[in-house]
Amino acid sequence: MTISRKVKEDLSNASWVRRMFEEGEELKERYGEENVFDFSLGNPDLEPPPSLKKALKSLADHPITGMHRYMPNSGYSETRKMLAEYLTEESGLPFEQKHVVMAVGAAGGLNVAFKAILDEGDEVIVPSPYFVEYKFYAENCGGQIRLVETNDDFSLNLAEIEKAIGEKTKIVLVNSPNNPTGVAYDKKSIEDLGELLKRKSRDLKKTIYLITDEAYRRIVYDQIQLPNAFNYYPHTLRVTSHSKDLSLPGERIGYIAVSPLCEEIDEMISALVFATRVLGFVNAPALMQRLIAPLQRNSVNIKHYEEKRDLFYRALKEFGYDVVKPQGAFYLFPKAPIEDDVAFVRELQSKRILTVPGRGFGRKGYFRIAYCVERKMIEGSFPGFKEVAEKYGMVRK
Amino acid sequence: MTISRKVKEDLSNASWVRRMFEEGEELKERYGEENVFDFSLGNPDLEPPPSLKKALKSLADHPITGMHRYMPNSGYSETRKMLAEYLTEESGLPFEQKHVVMAVGAAGGLNVAFKAILDEGDEVIVPSPYFVEYKFYAENCGGQIRLVETNDDFSLNLAEIEKAIGEKTKIVLVNSPNNPTGVAYDKKSIEDLGELLKRKSRDLKKTIYLITDEAYRRIVYDQIQLPNAFNYYPHTLRVTSHSKDLSLPGERIGYIAVSPLCEEIDEMISALVFATRVLGFVNAPALMQRLIAPLQRNSVNIKHYEEKRDLFYRALKEFGYDVVKPQGAFYLFPKAPIEDDVAFVRELQSKRILTVPGRGFGRKGYFRIAYCVERKMIEGSFPGFKEVAEKYGMVRK
Repeated sequence: MTISRKVKEDLSNASWVRRMFEEGEELKERYGEENVFDFSLGNPDLEPPPSLKKALKSLADHPITGMHRYMPNSGYSETRKMLAEYLTEESGLPFEQKHVVMAVGAAGGLNVAFKAILDEGDEVIVPSPYFVEYKFYAENCGGQIRLVETNDDFSLNLAEIEKAIGEKTKIVLVNSPNNPTGVAYDKKSIEDLGELLKRKSRDLKKTIYLITDEAYRRIVYDQIQLPNAFNYYPHTLRVTSHSKDLSLPGERIGYIAVSPLCEEIDEMISALVFATRVLGFVNAPALMQRLIAPLQRNSVNIKHYEEKRDLFYRALKEFGYDVVKPQGAFYLFPKAPIEDDVAFVRELQSKRILTVPGRGFGRKGYFRIAYCVERKMIEGSFPGFKEVAEKYGMVRK
Repeated sequence: MTISRKVKEDLSNASWVRRMFEEGEELKERYGEENVFDFSLGNPDLEPPPSLKKALKSLADHPITGMHRYMPNSGYSETRKMLAEYLTEESGLPFEQKHVVMAVGAAGGLNVAFKAILDEGDEVIVPSPYFVEYKFYAENCGGQIRLVETNDDFSLNLAEIEKAIGEKTKIVLVNSPNNPTGVAYDKKSIEDLGELLKRKSRDLKKTIYLITDEAYRRIVYDQIQLPNAFNYYPHTLRVTSHSKDLSLPGERIGYIAVSPLCEEIDEMISALVFATRVLGFVNAPALMQRLIAPLQRNSVNIKHYEEKRDLFYRALKEFGYDVVKPQGAFYLFPKAPIEDDVAFVRELQSKRILTVPGRGFGRKGYFRIAYCVERKMIEGSFPGFKEVAEKYGMVRK
C-alpha cells in the first residue's frame, strides 16, 4: 500500500471529461489534429480582451516595487475594494472590501467556502446534471453532495430541493449559467429558492447557505438579465472566476463574495480567510489580482459565443437532436437517441467527434458539447452529427 | 451553529505569526511605520532578479496565443522538461518531465502531496521547531503530524525520529534550510535519515515517504553544499517554490518533484495530478510557469541575505543572546532569557521590535526573527535588543 487508499479508489473512477480527452488525443495522433472535432473540454479559444493585455504590458513596463510579495491572505485591499464597488452597483447592497476574499479560481474558491462551512457528514445539495468535481470538493472537507434532479428543461425543481433539505443540509449550491446544460435559472426560480431557504432555515433552526457558482455569469445570450441571488437570500456566497469572462483559466484568478446581509459575517469572513491559508492557496496570484481589478465591466466578446450557439443549436435541431436551447455558458447538452450515452459518444467518436457522456455530469442518456472552439471545427463536425442522427433515425421536430 | 465547528476551533487558536503581525500593525499606527522594527513575517524585501522582470516584459510585449488557457493539471510540458533537466544536473538521476508536477507554491504542493499519500489517521513525522501550518495541511487530509524534537543546535535527532516511526507513519517531512531556525541539515544526517527510512520501510513492510520542503534551498551561506535527499533515499518527493529564491511569494508558483527511483511511480504521479485537480488548484498559474522555467540557475542576490545574517548574528551574540548561527533561509531563532517566550516577545514589543514567540513554531522559550528586511531596520533595532539583554542580565559568551 503506497498512495492514499481513498485517492486510489477515486483514480479508478477517472473523470469522463479527462477520459474522453485522452481518447481524443489518440484520435488526433491517428488522424491529425485538424481532422478531429474536439468538443470535450471547456477551454475557451478566445484570447483575453485587449484591455487585459494592455494592463499586463503596462505593469511589465512599469513594475511596482513589491508587486510580487505576500499580501493579506484575502488579497489586495485595492482589488477587493473595486470588486465591492462593482458588486454594490450590481445588487444595490452595501458591499465593502471585507466582503470579498480573492480566490485561486472558482475551484479554489469552492474548496475554501466548503472548508469554511462544512463539518464531517454535512451535506451540499446540488441540482443535477452538475459539474462532478463538486463531489470531490465536498469530500475534501468530510462533507458530501446530495443530488437533486432538475426539470426536463434543466430548470430548478424546487419541490425536489425542498424534499432533499434536512438536518444534514448546510449548503445549497447552484451553478447558473450551468455547466453542462448552458441553462440560466430565471428570476422566479431564484426568488422561490430564496424563500424556500428562508423557510427551511427557520424550520430547522439553522442557517442553510446558498452558494452560487457564477463562473459563466457574464456569458449570457439574447440580452437576458440574470437574477442576482444576493437580492433574494441573505446567507449567500458567490464564488466566481475570470476563467471564462476574461479567458484566463490557466491563471487561476477568482473570488468569493459574501452578502453583507449574511449573519455572523465577521466569523464567516475569518473562516474563509483561514481556509484560504491552510488549504495552501495562501492568496490568489498577485499579478492577476492587480490586472483584473479594473476590468469588472469588461469581458471577451460574448457575441462570438452566441453565434456559435446559434449555429450549433440550429444544426443539431435540423438533424433531429433533442436539445434544450442554452441561455449562456458555452455548452450544449443534447439527449442521446439511445440510453447508453457512452455507446453513443463512441459512435460520435467514430466520426472523429469528441464529446463527453452525460453520466460524467450525473445524467445518463445525454452528452455534452463544449463549443468554445473555432467555427471551422463546429462546421466540420456537422456531417458526422448528421450521419449519426440518420443512423439512429432521428427526425427533425 | 453556522461555520464549520472544526474551523471555529482552529480560529480560536490563531497563528502566532499572524497575531504578532496584527499587534505590530497597531504599533505602527501609534508610532509610525518607520519607528517599528518588524521581523515578524518572512516576506522578502528583495525584488525578483532582473532576468524575471525581463522575461515578463518580453512576454507582455509579445504575447503567445493561448498563453492564459488551461493546460494539463501537471503544468506545461516545456516547463516540466526544463525543471527535470535541472534536477538531473543536480542529482545525476534520470528525471523526466513526468516526474515534475507544477504546484501553487510549496504550501499548495504540500497539500497535494499529503492528499496523494495520506489516509485517515496516518502520521507525518516532523522535526520541531517547525512551520506550524504543516499541522493544518496534514489535518486537511485526515492525517496528523507527530513532532520529534531536534538537537540543541537544531540538527536532526535520528534516534528520536526512529522512536517515532510506527505503523501509522506514512511520511517523514524535513525542511532544510529550516523555518524557523535557519539551520541546514548536513550530508551525514540526510544520509543517515535515508538509511533509517530504508530499514524502517523494510521492517514495517511498507513505504515511508521522505518529503523535503526546500523552499529555501538556494538561500544558503558560507558556500556550503546542501546534500540532495534524492541521492540518499529512493521514495523522496521534493516540494519547493520560487517564493524565496526568485522573490515571488505572492505569485504562488512552485513544484513537486518525485524521485525517478520511487516505487510505483506512475501511480504516485497520477495521485499527485488528481490531488492538484480536486483540491481546486487545477494547475499552477500559467504565466509564472512560463517565466520561471528558464530561471532555474538564477536567484536573488543571496549575498544580500548573508550580510544581514552576519550583521544580526554578531550583534545578538555581542548583546549576550544565545543563538545558533544559521546556514540558510532568513531567520534567526534565539533562546529567550526567560521561559515565557510570549512575555519576552512583548518585552521586545515595548522597544517597538516585532518578533514571533517560539511556541508559534512548537518550541517555547525561543523567538523567531525574520531578517528579510532593509538593513536600516535591522540596525535600528539594535539599541532595543541591547536594552532588553541588559535588563535580563545577558552576558556575551
